[in-house]
Amino acid sequence: MTNVILGKNQYGKAENHVVRVNRDSDRHTLRDVVVSSQLRGDFQAVHTEGDNGHCVATDTQKNTVFALAQKHDVASPEEFLLTLSDHFTSSFDWVTGGRWAAEEHLWNRINDHDHSFVQNKDEVRTAVVVTDGSKRTVISGFRDLTVLKTTESGFVGYPKDPYTTLPETEDRVLSTDIATRWRYNTDDVDYDAVYEDVKKIILAKFTDHYSRALQETLYLMGKAVIEAHPEIDDIRFSCPNKHHFVYNLGFCDLENNNETHYAADRPYGLIEATIEREGAERADEVWAGIAGFC
Amino acid sequence: MTNVILGKNQYGKAENHVVRVNRDSDRHTLRDVVVSSQLRGDFQAVHTEGDNGHCVATDTQKNTVFALAQKHDVASPEEFLLTLSDHFTSSFDWVTGGRWAAEEHLWNRINDHDHSFVQNKDEVRTAVVVTDGSKRTVISGFRDLTVLKTTESGFVGYPKDPYTTLPETEDRVLSTDIATRWRYNTDDVDYDAVYEDVKKIILAKFTDHYSRALQETLYLMGKAVIEAHPEIDDIRFSCPNKHHFVYNLGFCDLENNNETHYAADRPYGLIEATIEREGAERADEVWAGIAGFC
Amino acid sequence: MTNVILGKNQYGKAENHVVRVNRDSDRHTLRDVVVSSQLRGDFQAVHTEGDNGHCVATDTQKNTVFALAQKHDVASPEEFLLTLSDHFTSSFDWVTGGRWAAEEHLWNRINDHDHSFVQNKDEVRTAVVVTDGSKRTVISGFRDLTVLKTTESGFVGYPKDPYTTLPETEDRVLSTDIATRWRYNTDDVDYDAVYEDVKKIILAKFTDHYSRALQETLYLMGKAVIEAHPEIDDIRFSCPNKHHFVYNLGFCDLENNNETHYAADRPYGLIEATIEREGAERADEVWAGIAGFC
Amino acid sequence: MTNVILGKNQYGKAENHVVRVNRDSDRHTLRDVVVSSQLRGDFQAVHTEGDNGHCVATDTQKNTVFALAQKHDVASPEEFLLTLSDHFTSSFDWVTGGRWAAEEHLWNRINDHDHSFVQNKDEVRTAVVVTDGSKRTVISGFRDLTVLKTTESGFVGYPKDPYTTLPETEDRVLSTDIATRWRYNTDDVDYDAVYEDVKKIILAKFTDHYSRALQETLYLMGKAVIEAHPEIDDIRFSCPNKHHFVYNLGFCDLENNNETHYAADRPYGLIEATIEREGAERADEVWAGIAGFC
Repeated sequence: MTNVILGKNQYGKAENHVVRVNRDSDRHTLRDVVVSSQLRGDFQAVHTEGDNGHCVATDTQKNTVFALAQKHDVASPEEFLLTLSDHFTSSFDWVTGGRWAAEEHLWNRINDHDHSFVQNKDEVRTAVVVTDGSKRTVISGFRDLTVLKTTESGFVGYPKDPYTTLPETEDRVLSTDIATRWRYNTDDVDYDAVYEDVKKIILAKFTDHYSRALQETLYLMGKAVIEAHPEIDDIRFSCPNKHHFVYNLGFCDLENNNETHYAADRPYGLIEATIEREGAERADEVWAGIAGFC
Repeated sequence: MTNVILGKNQYGKAENHVVRVNRDSDRHTLRDVVVSSQLRGDFQAVHTEGDNGHCVATDTQKNTVFALAQKHDVASPEEFLLTLSDHFTSSFDWVTGGRWAAEEHLWNRINDHDHSFVQNKDEVRTAVVVTDGSKRTVISGFRDLTVLKTTESGFVGYPKDPYTTLPETEDRVLSTDIATRWRYNTDDVDYDAVYEDVKKIILAKFTDHYSRALQETLYLMGKAVIEAHPEIDDIRFSCPNKHHFVYNLGFCDLENNNETHYAADRPYGLIEATIEREGAERADEVWAGIAGFC
Repeated sequence: MTNVILGKNQYGKAENHVVRVNRDSDRHTLRDVVVSSQLRGDFQAVHTEGDNGHCVATDTQKNTVFALAQKHDVASPEEFLLTLSDHFTSSFDWVTGGRWAAEEHLWNRINDHDHSFVQNKDEVRTAVVVTDGSKRTVISGFRDLTVLKTTESGFVGYPKDPYTTLPETEDRVLSTDIATRWRYNTDDVDYDAVYEDVKKIILAKFTDHYSRALQETLYLMGKAVIEAHPEIDDIRFSCPNKHHFVYNLGFCDLENNNETHYAADRPYGLIEATIEREGAERADEVWAGIAGFC
Repeated sequence: MTNVILGKNQYGKAENHVVRVNRDSDRHTLRDVVVSSQLRGDFQAVHTEGDNGHCVATDTQKNTVFALAQKHDVASPEEFLLTLSDHFTSSFDWVTGGRWAAEEHLWNRINDHDHSFVQNKDEVRTAVVVTDGSKRTVISGFRDLTVLKTTESGFVGYPKDPYTTLPETEDRVLSTDIATRWRYNTDDVDYDAVYEDVKKIILAKFTDHYSRALQETLYLMGKAVIEAHPEIDDIRFSCPNKHHFVYNLGFCDLENNNETHYAADRPYGLIEATIEREGAERADEVWAGIAGFC
């Protein structure tokens, strides 16, 4: 006779869209974050007995997100998630951990105006806090930062088999949507400052070398981040190779010297890699629930 | 016995994603446009007889888009669409008009680099050319420029009926995604320069007054554009009122003085209006197939 | 000196997601509709004076949608929109018309259960009521009904020009997402019954002939609908030609007799046509704000 | 001095959209699958040396997907992915594993026609094969099967804290989009038959009990699957609680006895759980890269 048991589980309220304005001076500021809260711990009876005695309502989690945003402001997505984690794990004995995540929409002032803003959609900032007992891990990142080089990229020297038709090229367009997350080994971090610097390093690295494959470029980006930031132990990328095919115009006798491209949607290359500080503690289990690509 | 006839129709190839790089100097430039081509004219027999003698293949239209991008470059979306329109109406007797549209993705240089770019996603630039015989109409615009004011907006004085529960407020967050299109009365236009200026006027106008309703703000934006640009005869807006509700935290005795908001997705207000130069020729039929909101 | 004036405008609350359960018997039913309400009339002062005296709040429109759903139930999307139209135009002198639209999500019973349902996502049902003074027009339709034929479709006999590279074919896959809307010439209609029959006619017509072009197939579908339904005066289609390219496997010496296809996303053909009852009254202005493709 | 090293990585071609028609008889069949291929193994030099000697081109992976679809047909998504896995791991010494995934779009015949089909969008079928050396793991599933009960669901007995405002209810609408994946402990499986049966069990279980929380319902679904299918060792769910709020119509003196609901988009509950066969071998590392929610 089969015994069936409950395995890993988590639950909560996802995508609470909080816009927190700070009006302490006439020069307003705002943080615009979409926050998800999920609790882990002893939720056995909720599943197997229909007993909700431990089931902190997802509605309560929502109320808490907004109340703590009001009470403590949102200094950064990371600090706000740590506040949520501490609240839930200290308020309920049986909540031994959880996963709190935020996506931040960024805003710029319009003409340096005190209270008028235009959204900066170039990328979405991300943050996750994973708590397991007394261990809190912070992972920051961004997604959808789209970059493109019109030259200084090629792809040669790859294996040829009966299914290979791709011609080698020493000059091509290279484009990707950068999605990256990095893990801190401390919580003594100025999260906004590190965010800006990591983004700056990644953009600068994209421009500074001849790319022999997107793999090489991602590795160089990650290496530069790890070397510049001792508080970061590993960084992951999951990036499409957004193909820009040179449109063959031979049919109408037009030369096309890498000028007119067809930008394809699907399929696309997909390159995923981790770059790590040698000797640092691994955190595979934490990564699994976040950017768990392998 | 019923007679059934063919009414208005158009067809073509939609969403050709063209990335045109100009490599004439080491400082590369690019235009990234998603182009749709649709032909109008005598296509009766294609529909009613299965006779494709007049049916310029949509595949041919695609090839033409890429070939003309290579041949003439893409000086601006508007000029490129005019080139397409002229090509098709002059190449085929029975093509008496059509609709050509582009959405342009914008790119900034990374650190002023010669050939490395990062996509600017703040808005999508749009352009449409509608041709009817010898009459070509150009309509430019943009969509998804998201703006927000943290104060200097209110809503009072509206009618109260048995279904009215909204309290009046003299201080609220106002936010919208600006989608706008404007129609030129000439084709002697520096399209890129006008685009930049219209966007600048609209952003500046958003900041400069106390908004008594989104309707008023849209009207003021449109009025400023028409007054500054004699080459524009009308401008349309279709803009959501993106509600930011002050989260009621009375249950936990927290004051919330317009600081912590819940940003709702649906439903949303939807405000659509045309602002026109008095006495200018109307173009309702052209608008109908583009931003045909009424 | 330029005079700037307000042109066409409308406003309201968009995408109110109403799920109306009827529990009058143990065998529950439900209608799941996303309803948009937009008013037209004298809204001059809202725009130009910041005077909201005529501005029926979009929040009031939302409350009204839910209240009338409760009061009158939702017999069909069309009847519910007519109820909304009558309510607003009779309640406010200055509201002389408007546009009310619904998208209906469809549900099937699970195993004929009394109160458990599974969503049928094959298509989305649509309805629009446009009111102008005492004239109410009802337009019904659906979108995203995806069909495919593996044979009995070809494309030959089209013009060849210097940009034509497409080879003729007498056997190809034909696939499209059917989006259609039809206009009634009466409001004495069993909307649910006609909906089912129109969908049935369109699906049957898709199967019953060799298609020489998507244009021909759409025309035949529309013709069959007009002939079967005297209460319908015109019908419009806006349908992509979803290309399924036979993958060329010559490189590895595999034959591919229209078996293995690459289904492309963009670009796609886009075929739009109106099929009309000869002699019927036209309604171009109504169509303009709904499916205003030309 | 910091040493930076390459960690976990994988790469390939994502979202190859294959439509494989079988025309062996006049009664055609088709499988419509979006296939992603990602390789794992020794790809160190690609990243750190720019040496592509081991870098099987993603374009080659694409060609292989289409060629093997032609050569072997697509008997089921799972069998096709196993074929791909065997091909790549046997063709290249340094490819020691990988991840192959498919999303299948389902089609029904139109009126039992031999070669005309309408897409069934009720759910998307999914499959993943993860290979690590000689160990191949098959995980099947589906997503976006949307279900709803109009009664026989409640939520009571949960903890009340200062942030709790949710009233208890013994009668509410319960709705979710079911996303589930299950892992086989053998590859001697009739994948199509098991798929149909698991879906049937899950739908039936949704209807057959009073639900005291979505957690309980998911657990009961999973338990029924594990008990009925000895070839399945664990099953995971990730399901939103799609809130249907009873619209408060007290302002206009209308009773609303769970009839008129506002269906909210965000935030939503998010319930994730694993149900397992006791004593079975765990596969946390495999799950991490697939539905790695914790």
